[in-house]
Amino acid sequence: MRFATLRIDGTLTAARIEGDRAVLLDAEHAVEAYLRRGRLKETGEVDAGSAHYARVSPSPAHILCAGLNHRGHLEELKRPAPTFPTLFAKFASTLTGPRDVIALPRVSDHIDGEAELAVVVGRRLRRADVREAREGIAGYTVANDMSLRDWQHRTTEALQGKVFDRSTPLGPVLVTPEELDDARDLAVTFTVDGEERQRGRTSELLFGPAELLAYCSTFLTLEPGDVLLTGAPGRTSAADTPLTPGRTLVTAVEGIGAAINPTTADPLPDTRDLWREHLARRPGTPADETP
Amino acid sequence: MRFATLRIDGTLTAARIEGDRAVLLDAEHAVEAYLRRGRLKETGEVDAGSAHYARVSPSPAHILCAGLNHRGHLEELKRPAPTFPTLFAKFASTLTGPRDVIALPRVSDHIDGEAELAVVVGRRLRRADVREAREGIAGYTVANDMSLRDWQHRTTEALQGKVFDRSTPLGPVLVTPEELDDARDLAVTFTVDGEERQRGRTSELLFGPAELLAYCSTFLTLEPGDVLLTGAPGRTSAADTPLTPGRTLVTAVEGIGAAINPTTADPLPDTRDLWREHLARRPGTPADETP
Repeated sequence: MRFATLRIDGTLTAARIEGDRAVLLDAEHAVEAYLRRGRLKETGEVDAGSAHYARVSPSPAHILCAGLNHRGHLEELKRPAPTFPTLFAKFASTLTGPRDVIALPRVSDHIDGEAELAVVVGRRLRRADVREAREGIAGYTVANDMSLRDWQHRTTEALQGKVFDRSTPLGPVLVTPEELDDARDLAVTFTVDGEERQRGRTSELLFGPAELLAYCSTFLTLEPGDVLLTGAPGRTSAADTPLTPGRTLVTAVEGIGAAINPTTADPLPDTRDLWREHLARRPGTPADETP
Repeated sequence: MRFATLRIDGTLTAARIEGDRAVLLDAEHAVEAYLRRGRLKETGEVDAGSAHYARVSPSPAHILCAGLNHRGHLEELKRPAPTFPTLFAKFASTLTGPRDVIALPRVSDHIDGEAELAVVVGRRLRRADVREAREGIAGYTVANDMSLRDWQHRTTEALQGKVFDRSTPLGPVLVTPEELDDARDLAVTFTVDGEERQRGRTSELLFGPAELLAYCSTFLTLEPGDVLLTGAPGRTSAADTPLTPGRTLVTAVEGIGAAINPTTADPLPDTRDLWREHLARRPGTPADETP
């Protein structure tokens, strides 16, 4: 089954997608529709092609993202395969819809994206083993781990480069696992104005979706609606030209669909210098610490 | 002014703390009481000493935590002062009340805490300069950055060691900035069963509260109720004995108060081996990758 969270007259509504039809359901969003499937009233129908798709999981309690999770990429970097997944967080405010415009903040000189398979949790998972975690997956969707590379690499923690407002598209649809053979071997691609920046397969992931969820459930309790980005498979665009306003980003996972997001310039000014100026001026900043 | 979020008959209620009295307010939590101060109906009064204090900000959209933010600690490590703050995230699910029992998960061999000054945001901050950020502070409170050290150091990202369920006390009260001289020089202490594990002063922080908020507001929009942990000043207990069940943790900041949290053993078993066993067994794990 395929579920979506649609925005209709300003309100979020779940829908079951059946070919060209979006069957509206008496539920707020796709994860709720998944959880209550079989017990939901159908409330109408709209054209699936022209519907306004919102992010599939509107307010996850946890968004966890795996890094360094691609075999090929690790070989390229000549790094040994890590023993444990590397994980960072995003916030609900970081998500955006799969058709929304992404405003690129002027405070970064290198904004970049990474197409990823995302997993949505359908059941509370706590100290789950891998089998339980697999059974707890509501479905799969598409995400783009948009990043401010310059901020990401400022310190040892990537967070500050990973959470700019409404940057990470999630959707368009939640596809249940049985439709995708558990997402074992799906093509993942990222194009900018039609030019390919990334191509990989989920089979190249070092830790798979259920393994990552089981691991995460060991240190916290995962809740229905939680989202896990599994990391970029295939060559990333890190070395390429930074993204600029006026482009169209297409992030796709085979068998699920594509997030199609135009970019625009953030209207707010570049305020990086305010910080630098403050530091340079304040008492207690030795000259050699001045950035 | 001093505000608290109290749990009364199972419901969260804001209160203004005046000596021994907790004046109940027609608001859900301390941050809401701060935002609507002067326009709030008083709905009753309870004894401040015996009230049930909940975490001061019940559901922040963002919890940001500064690391490596202590001058003395950096000197100890012989590391140069960093140019930029190091930041990681916690989730709302990571917070707990300032009188609640903290269950120590069996999946870690080294659970540890750090007393920290926490800042609560009172106004939307976006690309704020340091002065605007200072004016946007609702108040200060006490937090303990409880950590699973072994998990924290597994990878380059600390997150997995920083977010175990209901681990990070936040409270007891929100104290407005004018009562604390902007928290410029307050003693911060952490004791376990009365034994001191940490003692420092907020004046030793490399980046101050308003500087950290201004910095964070450059890469995301901060919202009222958001929480920022400013990092541990003073010697941390990292090198000390891991915390064990049956202790009482007292995390205090001068002029604010103390979070007093007993520890207990998490009833759930140690499931770390499930993960190791799965990895060892699965196809595609070369022998030299087996953890």
